[in-house]
Amino acid sequence: MATKAPTLKLASGYDMPLVGFGIWKVPRETCADQVYNAIKLGYRHIDGAWDYTNSAEAGEGVRRAIKEGIVKREDMFITSKLWNNYHAREHAFEMAKLENEAWGLDYLDLFLIHFPISLEFIPFDKMRYPCFWTDKEQTKPTPLAKVPISETWKALEDMVQTKDNPKGFIKSIGVSNFHTQLLYDLLSYAKIQPSVLQIEHHPYLTQPELVKMAQENNIAVTGYSTFGPQSFLELDNPQAKEVKPLFVVDAVKSIAAKHGKSPSQVLLRWCTQRNVIVIPKSNSVDRLKQNLECCTFDLSEDELKQISDLNMNLRFNSPSSISSSFRIFT
Amino acid sequence: MATKAPTLKLASGYDMPLVGFGIWKVPRETCADQVYNAIKLGYRHIDGAWDYTNSAEAGEGVRRAIKEGIVKREDMFITSKLWNNYHAREHAFEMAKLENEAWGLDYLDLFLIHFPISLEFIPFDKMRYPCFWTDKEQTKPTPLAKVPISETWKALEDMVQTKDNPKGFIKSIGVSNFHTQLLYDLLSYAKIQPSVLQIEHHPYLTQPELVKMAQENNIAVTGYSTFGPQSFLELDNPQAKEVKPLFVVDAVKSIAAKHGKSPSQVLLRWCTQRNVIVIPKSNSVDRLKQNLECCTFDLSEDELKQISDLNMNLRFNSPSSISSSFRIFT
Repeated sequence: MATKAPTLKLASGYDMPLVGFGIWKVPRETCADQVYNAIKLGYRHIDGAWDYTNSAEAGEGVRRAIKEGIVKREDMFITSKLWNNYHAREHAFEMAKLENEAWGLDYLDLFLIHFPISLEFIPFDKMRYPCFWTDKEQTKPTPLAKVPISETWKALEDMVQTKDNPKGFIKSIGVSNFHTQLLYDLLSYAKIQPSVLQIEHHPYLTQPELVKMAQENNIAVTGYSTFGPQSFLELDNPQAKEVKPLFVVDAVKSIAAKHGKSPSQVLLRWCTQRNVIVIPKSNSVDRLKQNLECCTFDLSEDELKQISDLNMNLRFNSPSSISSSFRIFT
Repeated sequence: MATKAPTLKLASGYDMPLVGFGIWKVPRETCADQVYNAIKLGYRHIDGAWDYTNSAEAGEGVRRAIKEGIVKREDMFITSKLWNNYHAREHAFEMAKLENEAWGLDYLDLFLIHFPISLEFIPFDKMRYPCFWTDKEQTKPTPLAKVPISETWKALEDMVQTKDNPKGFIKSIGVSNFHTQLLYDLLSYAKIQPSVLQIEHHPYLTQPELVKMAQENNIAVTGYSTFGPQSFLELDNPQAKEVKPLFVVDAVKSIAAKHGKSPSQVLLRWCTQRNVIVIPKSNSVDRLKQNLECCTFDLSEDELKQISDLNMNLRFNSPSSISSSFRIFT
């Protein structure tokens, strides 16, 4: 029987699997198959985004698995995210509808504000990839748009399916890449509490205060790029190339050897054991399987600490590297 | 003739002196005299706050100097700040009026939101010091209040004196202790742009991205605790006691020796030369004078960099040390 990941109860009341398959950088051509195979292995949680441009293909993979009776829709947990150019209330709604239709699974389980920054609107018929941090030639940053986060949050609240809002097509809502000041502010006016905060989180960037603040406020934390520099090598990120890969760091290797697990399993367990949801990507079936099995052993307090102590506040995913107008991480 | 500090043009159109006298921890008993003496030395900028509980005394010192013909009201630049328990629109207004009356100088030049966190209201007749991060016994943190920053900002906007709002009694408004995400959000809905951001800023906590983001958006930056640990020794801050005092750090000492200036003057010049306003406190007339004279020499690019390179992201003033409910700096 396929492994299943444990789940976490969200503020919304829904359960979210602690391990998901993240499809950032999964090529369109193979995405349907990869998602289908992940489900066959036992994955019940897929983390996508409009920005990843593979939602339609991912949805196709999920529908195939449903059609073949491997899973039911209600067993799956599908996340997508609102891109920066669509923060205005009407655009957010339109974008979410398009995203939901792309997946073709009737509803989305979780919809996040992808970044806490609003950029000028790009008409839907002119959408393209790479995304709209810049113009097509990637020479000029897209201007900021004056849309408060409160407006975007209200738009998300209106999408949530409730008894009073049967037309809603989202089960839970949340945010990504937010820091605590903006979260405190959001909590002060939210009518529907955020269920999830998704952030960059790995041993080189542990952000302990941010994780604690979210969890103390009943906001589940999803960590992206759990393997640290690994995710950014293919993007030619210079810092990622300079720093020691986490898989070969002494502490990680020796803990892995002690438990008879792989370094990647240890890194994932370091997260999930502290209730941080993980969404690793892999193009290999073997590694996908290993990743999903990361909750079958426990690290000691000392081992968790050894890994947390690797922190050096090293962030790989920062839009200020694209333009100085986007200095959101400080 | 007394030295005068250069000024910076604010977004509001008013000029703000680059060097001010900060009255945090200036005892009530001596505050009027100290402020009066500072003005005699040439200070034209006083940085206060409701939280410092010495506004009435500081105002007395300013009025004495005006009465004696040393300055006119319009030559002075007076800053005060709104405390966390008074973020709701009506409370903010009431508090600002009380603060303005305490100074007794007709109007305030600058009024800042002191911290980006809203705490439960404390009635005005029950105000006390230490401030309301906690109950009187300092055992229980004051609960958060659900007041969005946008509401508090609107309250400040309503206080600004303009042709359309002659009853306003504030010239410029701004914020303190905000990070970039919340600033971007504020800029998206502000009808009156923030003129100033006041933050902890010294060679051990340089926050370059935050300073750049603010300055690029025409928000002048005021740095508090320019001497780093120095300000926090008297508060028994354990980190401040552990770390090397900035005055004896090699780079600072040798640059000071080279220019024939004191280490404190070098630290202040490191700020003002990069257009960061400083508000040092001193109980000694000699040092007050030295501090004011910090703009009479220039550091080389390399010297500025040597000092900036001392950065270790070491923050001394963080409310999360009072309670885990106040994790605003991450």
